[in-house]
Formats: sequence, structure tokens, C-alpha cells
Amino acid sequence: MGAPMCQNLLSAGLPLTVWNRSMAKAKPLSKRGAVVSDSPQSAVADADVVITMLSDGAAVSNVIFTQGVAEAMREGITHIDMSSIGADEAIEHAKHHVNLGVSYLDAPVSGGTKGAAAGELAIMAGGDAETFAAMQAVFAPLGQATHVGPNGCGQLAKLANQVIVAVTIGAVSEAFILAGGGGADRAKVREALQGGFASSRILTEHGQRMVDRAFESGGPAKFQLKDLHNALRAADRLGLELPITKLLHGLFDAMVQGGKGDMDHSGLLTHLEALNNITGN
Amino acid sequence: MGAPMCQNLLSAGLPLTVWNRSMAKAKPLSKRGAVVSDSPQSAVADADVVITMLSDGAAVSNVIFTQGVAEAMREGITHIDMSSIGADEAIEHAKHHVNLGVSYLDAPVSGGTKGAAAGELAIMAGGDAETFAAMQAVFAPLGQATHVGPNGCGQLAKLANQVIVAVTIGAVSEAFILAGGGGADRAKVREALQGGFASSRILTEHGQRMVDRAFESGGPAKFQLKDLHNALRAADRLGLELPITKLLHGLFDAMVQGGKGDMDHSGLLTHLEALNNITGN
Repeated sequence: MGAPMCQNLLSAGLPLTVWNRSMAKAKPLSKRGAVVSDSPQSAVADADVVITMLSDGAAVSNVIFTQGVAEAMREGITHIDMSSIGADEAIEHAKHHVNLGVSYLDAPVSGGTKGAAAGELAIMAGGDAETFAAMQAVFAPLGQATHVGPNGCGQLAKLANQVIVAVTIGAVSEAFILAGGGGADRAKVREALQGGFASSRILTEHGQRMVDRAFESGGPAKFQLKDLHNALRAADRLGLELPITKLLHGLFDAMVQGGKGDMDHSGLLTHLEALNNITGN
Repeated sequence: MGAPMCQNLLSAGLPLTVWNRSMAKAKPLSKRGAVVSDSPQSAVADADVVITMLSDGAAVSNVIFTQGVAEAMREGITHIDMSSIGADEAIEHAKHHVNLGVSYLDAPVSGGTKGAAAGELAIMAGGDAETFAAMQAVFAPLGQATHVGPNGCGQLAKLANQVIVAVTIGAVSEAFILAGGGGADRAKVREALQGGFASSRILTEHGQRMVDRAFESGGPAKFQLKDLHNALRAADRLGLELPITKLLHGLFDAMVQGGKGDMDHSGLLTHLEALNNITGN
């Protein structure tokens, strides 16, 4: 997702220095006006704002703190971490940064590469209200940013987002199995339901994938499982019971255990069909 | 919901005869140009199309078949039952009508009184494709009608709709409990999530009720429970296992048992909060 986000920042006229572990991914952005850096330390050296978009909390911790990139940042700048990581990890990173005089926002996104390309990401930001307010020019080209609470809350909101996504995929799956089981045309059911209270982006987009049985991965089931695991871990730390999230975690876990980890998360339908001895129709 | 639907039919210039168990509900429509009938038999006597909107299958069966209203219909006309009833009941009603030479569509709706007033109901129709095609002028003023399959499938699609509604309410509830539990502002979380993959009409409308803690009933929990019960009954008849629907049935059942049957279904949040010893915030 980093590349389309960078393009939108460049289109907005913001000066940009980029670094990626794979030089091949960063290179094409030089044609668009970005400076390509050969190390994360040099990439951040003159920055007013540093944005990271990495795979998980361990990757962020490794690049920013273990490799001394945080120390390479100038005092008073802001680090916006748009990666999806644990809320506890975000709080820990915030503390490290405070010691170095760097402001920090956890600001994960929802909307996929499509949303990233369109500059229409839903951005959930945790941190200081003033820091958030100061970053509007950076967020605006990327999507709609909302300040949801102190550090860690952006990540919690993202987990909340992923809980809704997973559970809604389960809901649409069972709805299709029920209606289809009685002879209804699933494509028509999807169409009919879109105007009513059941309408959602999941019904529209993932429901279409289910109808087309196009389960090549947009968002793989194994990542959805990881998100649900992190949500339950966060809930556990907060002393919360989330029975629906727990059930969905179990279903996605069984799906991944059954060898479908790389299938799109909408493929949960096939797992529930298999439980019902239904062969895809 | 009958009244606003009648008003939309009248606004479209369709001649309308109305009957209601409570004369007081039918009367005001005479000012809008409807003929008010004093019995269901006389209401249907000259009709080309009969529309029923009643509370459940037993009410439809009683009015139409026990009270001899089906026999009062002219041969060759069409009865559109827009009530939410069992798929098996719809199939049975279709059979009764066939014997009397009356065409039948089961065509329940989603969208609530708001959707009814706006002429924007999602109408899920089961029955003969030709009968459905011939009814376009009747459906058009009421909303968007989709033919989903043979008789009974309209009702199954409605149950599928209700499954998605109930499960999505559960999803949004747990998402709010998780994010709020970690200090995020639920109103802001709702706002932030609306642009992403978690966006849905439930997040927008029911999510707002949760934020406002405005649980006066739009759709009471006891009706949501009835819908889930009917969905599981239909699944059972079709030999289907729906684990997520089953969990939500249990949660709504406990909510209703706990005395919250008349609360809006979005009040499931309060039931899940109580399980977590959270007092509403």
C-alpha cells in the first residue's frame, strides 16, 4: 500500500524521501519526484514528518528502534506509524519516542490498496490532539483521518474495524448459505439486500467475490486470523469478553488450519459450506 | 409500515382500496384518495392485485385463508404478501392460492418505516418470474424489488437479511466495547470506521443509537429474536448448521429473558456490556 500512498503525497506537492527494504519497490517513485534513500537512517535525517507502513509491530520495532532510526530523527519532529500493530506495542513505541523528543501518532488504515490509490483510506489516529491537528496536511492526500483517542487507540480502532469486517463476512456467508440452501439465487439475494438494513461494504465487495467464487486474495484469511488474535489479546489485557469475536477467531483458525490461509478472507464462506457438506455453487 | 406504503401507491396514481383491523388506521387514507373497506372480503372483491402487510404467518393464514378472503379474490389476480412470515408458510400459502387460480408472490421488505416513507424499501420477492415481471408498476412506488427465486425464497432472503442485521449489530457492539475499553472515543471510532471496510448501514444508524444510548425501539429485540428463531428453524429444515446465527440467537434470547425485549435491537450492546460488568458510557 505504500506506493500509492506515496504517489498521493507527491501529487499533493509534499516533498518526499522514501526507503524500502526492497530497492526495486522504492525506485519507481523517483520518477514521480521522490528522493530514494538507501537506508532508513538517511531517509529520516532531514524529515519533519516520518511515516512508516510496515507489516507488524515487530517490524516497526526492529526498523525504528533496534536499527537506531529513532535516534536519527531530529528532535521535535513527528513519527506517524500507519502500520497495523498491537495497541500495547504502539503505547510502548510512544514512550520510546517521548524520551527522544519525537511526537508519535499510531494511525493505521482501512480501505485496502484500492482505498490507498483513491486517497480514500479511513485513518484511525491515536495520540496527542495537537500533534494530530498539526498533521492534517499530511493526512489529507491519503484519506479521511479521525482522532479517536490517546496513543494506542488508533490501533484499537483498527482492531475494532477488523472485528467488524470478520464478523460481517461470517454474517454474509451464513446468509448466503441459508438463502441458497432453500433455492434462492445468491447473486439476486445480494442485490436485493443492498438497499436494506443489511447493506454494507462487505456485502457489496466481499459478497460479490462470494457470488463469483473469486477467492484469490485481496486480504488473506491468515491476516484476518492474526487481526482477530490481536483483538482477543487486547480484549484479554483489558479484561473483556467478546463472544462473537471469539467464535469468528475459531472459525478463521479452523479455516487456516485446513490449508486456506492464503485464500481471501471472504473464502470463510467455503469453510462454512464445507461444515455443511455443501460443494460450492 | 402499511400507511406510508399506501401513500406511495396513491401518489403513483394507483387506485387503492384499504382495510385494517383497526378502522382508525385505515380512515386517514380516504383523504388521500383510498377507498376504505369495512371487511377484507369486500376489500379484495374487485382487486387486480391484493397486498397484505401483517405481523406474521399465522395472521396472514387467518385473514386470507380461514376468513375466506382468498375465495373472495377473482381468478387470475395476484396476491403479494409483503409480511415477514416463515418460508414454509409462504410455500403453503402459494399452494392454497394455486388451487383457487390466484398468483402469489412472497415479497417481504427491509428498510423500516423510514424506508417505507421514502419509497426506498428493499423488496425480496419469491415466486414465478412472469408474475414478478407483471408487478413492476406496483413495486416501483414502494422501493427496489428483486426476484430472488421461487415461492418461499423471498422469505428466506428476508431471514438472510435479518441474520446479517443481528450479527452486524453484535459486531459493532463488540467493536465499541473493545475500542472504548482501551480509552477510545466510541463516537470518533464510529466516524473513523465509516470510510473503511467496516462501513455498513448498521454502523451508521444503529452505531449512532449506541453512541447516543438511544435504545427506544425502532426494531425491538424480541422481534429480532423471533427472526433469528425463524432463521434457525428454516436452517434446521434444510439440514444446515449456522454457528454464528446460533450464537446471536443465544445472545438475543438472554437479552430478552433479561427483560430487554422491548428495547431496540441495537441495545444488544447493553447486554454485552453487562456481561463485561461495564456500565454504559
